[in-house]
Amino acid sequence: MHVRYFEDFEPGQELTLPAHTVTRAEIVAFAAEFDPQPFHLDESAAAGSLLGGLAASGWHTCALFMRMLCQGWLNDSASMGSPGVDTLKWLRPVRPGEVLSGRSIVLEVRPSRSRSDRGFVRFRHEVANARGEPVMVLENPIMFTRRR
Amino acid sequence: MHVRYFEDFEPGQELTLPAHTVTRAEIVAFAAEFDPQPFHLDESAAAGSLLGGLAASGWHTCALFMRMLCQGWLNDSASMGSPGVDTLKWLRPVRPGEVLSGRSIVLEVRPSRSRSDRGFVRFRHEVANARGEPVMVLENPIMFTRRR
Repeated sequence: MHVRYFEDFEPGQELTLPAHTVTRAEIVAFAAEFDPQPFHLDESAAAGSLLGGLAASGWHTCALFMRMLCQGWLNDSASMGSPGVDTLKWLRPVRPGEVLSGRSIVLEVRPSRSRSDRGFVRFRHEVANARGEPVMVLENPIMFTRRR
Repeated sequence: MHVRYFEDFEPGQELTLPAHTVTRAEIVAFAAEFDPQPFHLDESAAAGSLLGGLAASGWHTCALFMRMLCQGWLNDSASMGSPGVDTLKWLRPVRPGEVLSGRSIVLEVRPSRSRSDRGFVRFRHEVANARGEPVMVLENPIMFTRRR
């Protein structure tokens, strides 16, 4: 049973994303598989980089955000998926041991013009570290089924 | 030794991303870890979804793209990383067995205003299936060291 349909979203609404502690092992494992740049794999190489120390791949942060989104509220919704992302900013390095949390803020709701059974909800998603500093922000539309 | 520095990019230039065959096992493994929505995990649930059959998480396509980028040319460059993505579109489902390939097209080069040792290169990256149909397109700036 879905908790949230298209009609259940309204601008300004905030939905919580659960916390996740990022480990060094997962940072290195993700980078080795998908983003094998020295500053995501090795402390000494990372120390001399712009990141100033080992940090997660930005795509790893995206993947972790997606899991937080699924666990937080998306998997209890009538989501039909998303066509993409309008803007995505990696604002600060994500370090081993950091605790990420976040929220999804509803920016806009819009019924589909062509299909009466669905609508789009535009979100701003924010992921922050334990000091409350934003590490990633992204905006995107997600499509939801309407109540029948 | 880096093959490409900031000065080695110019608008219109195209860089090839190597092919990758996406397996069902990796689609399900990525989704189970990071994007556990039914249409990324299970054929029968996916058949009734907007995707019309099992398809990779969009973030999985991003991660695979990143590996193609590293292997194709990024790891032979003086890349310093990227602050984010301006636009990202998932245009078609990525199915088990599909062969992805792609290219990076240079849109713009711009020396840093504040730091003389670096510059930004804006790219449009395209990922396509074996029929040449685009499955994902994204635009983003990447920072590179200048030649000394």
